[in-house]
Amino acid sequence: MSKPTILVTNDDGITSKGITHLVSLMKTIGDVIVVAPDSPQSGMGHAITLEDPIRVQQVHTMNDIEAYSCSGTPVDCVKMARSVLFKDRHIDLCVSGINHGSNAGINIIYSGTMSAAMEASLEGIDSIGFSLLDFDPNATFEHANDYILHIVQSVLKKKLQGGKLLNVNIPKASDAHIKGIKICRQGQGAWNEEFIQHKDPRGRNYYWMSGHFENLEHSEDTDLWALSQNYISIVPATSDLTDYKQIAQLNQILNET
Amino acid sequence: MSKPTILVTNDDGITSKGITHLVSLMKTIGDVIVVAPDSPQSGMGHAITLEDPIRVQQVHTMNDIEAYSCSGTPVDCVKMARSVLFKDRHIDLCVSGINHGSNAGINIIYSGTMSAAMEASLEGIDSIGFSLLDFDPNATFEHANDYILHIVQSVLKKKLQGGKLLNVNIPKASDAHIKGIKICRQGQGAWNEEFIQHKDPRGRNYYWMSGHFENLEHSEDTDLWALSQNYISIVPATSDLTDYKQIAQLNQILNET
Repeated sequence: MSKPTILVTNDDGITSKGITHLVSLMKTIGDVIVVAPDSPQSGMGHAITLEDPIRVQQVHTMNDIEAYSCSGTPVDCVKMARSVLFKDRHIDLCVSGINHGSNAGINIIYSGTMSAAMEASLEGIDSIGFSLLDFDPNATFEHANDYILHIVQSVLKKKLQGGKLLNVNIPKASDAHIKGIKICRQGQGAWNEEFIQHKDPRGRNYYWMSGHFENLEHSEDTDLWALSQNYISIVPATSDLTDYKQIAQLNQILNET
Repeated sequence: MSKPTILVTNDDGITSKGITHLVSLMKTIGDVIVVAPDSPQSGMGHAITLEDPIRVQQVHTMNDIEAYSCSGTPVDCVKMARSVLFKDRHIDLCVSGINHGSNAGINIIYSGTMSAAMEASLEGIDSIGFSLLDFDPNATFEHANDYILHIVQSVLKKKLQGGKLLNVNIPKASDAHIKGIKICRQGQGAWNEEFIQHKDPRGRNYYWMSGHFENLEHSEDTDLWALSQNYISIVPATSDLTDYKQIAQLNQILNET
């Protein structure tokens, strides 16, 4: 049987440690191709580049792997891969990451890592976003190797249904061993922004977005709980944002008044 | 009873015709405040600005209304409104738009208009994104006035549950009258990208993203169908991306292998 073709992308940029690690793992399983941003694109969500042209450049630092850097967003990278760079190639799987930082809970909607994976899922490709709960650019990923390989091989063998998208978050490396994998729902949390205010030389204010994440629920079926207990969390995700439970209420609201 | 405070934002920028029209309608209902991008931000999805500072500037072209332009994304605008500009003010409703172009179907995930509204819903504010199926910067919106006022007044009176977010799409102005409102689910469709290739003076390729939207289903409960029949479509939306139906299958996939 021929090896599967695996598209690797991320949002931290093509020179980050996380994507380098993911590529090295995927090489043991399949034929790897890479299209990733040429600069950090964290927090880009599902942005696409409409107001500027997009450039791509072949990258020769990944040994024998065909790799491209792209000036656009993570979603642009997947679109370029599908429509230009590898348009005649069948892609069996898209993996995105390994992100430096959590994409659990509501972080999924801000995450370039997850949006790139979702874009591939919209094209019918089984897709997995991997994130590590450690923002350190020099973080270590080895403790997750066996789990990542198990998840990818299982998906390649059995195929995903529905949204065809998994949001995988991995506890930070520590002395405590990872306890295993939990399939979860997306936990509710929120970012509490703090805007740091500075003045430019002309006396005008500018702001840096900062803040901290607040976990707003502790149910044992959520990704946030699983991670707090040192499990790897996997949330099956979808691009159908319909809030089905509200359809009946909304019919009432709009017809009664 | 005191008037409700209504935050207005968009993704086409604070000088666009769509937001000007929406502000004029909201003024008849409540106290209006505005924070919107200083330049077009279509397709920005749920992007936030982490790598650059954010600037805001008071805008004096909206008569008596307190309005600010913001250098960031649509989501940044809502965060700045909540955390800096109007941090001590209770906001009863956020309306985003009126977008020049459809945000029906899968467009919701690329849309800065809808992401701004979703961001407000994450803060617990009832939120509505309005979009017109007409990309013309000089489009006319008057044919939708009564419907928009009805939707906003109904939501203010009855409050939204669940995701607290509505995706409202409005047929283009034409000789045919709008038939009414349909509450729908998000229809399945996809963008078929075409990247237009050019060469710069040094012979290197660059690409413009282009393409067309393809409606992939025609069920009568979808927004895409309702719009095709000249109804206004309303999809109740959520930021919970969990694909609940896949949780059981995923437990099987990962434990069997």
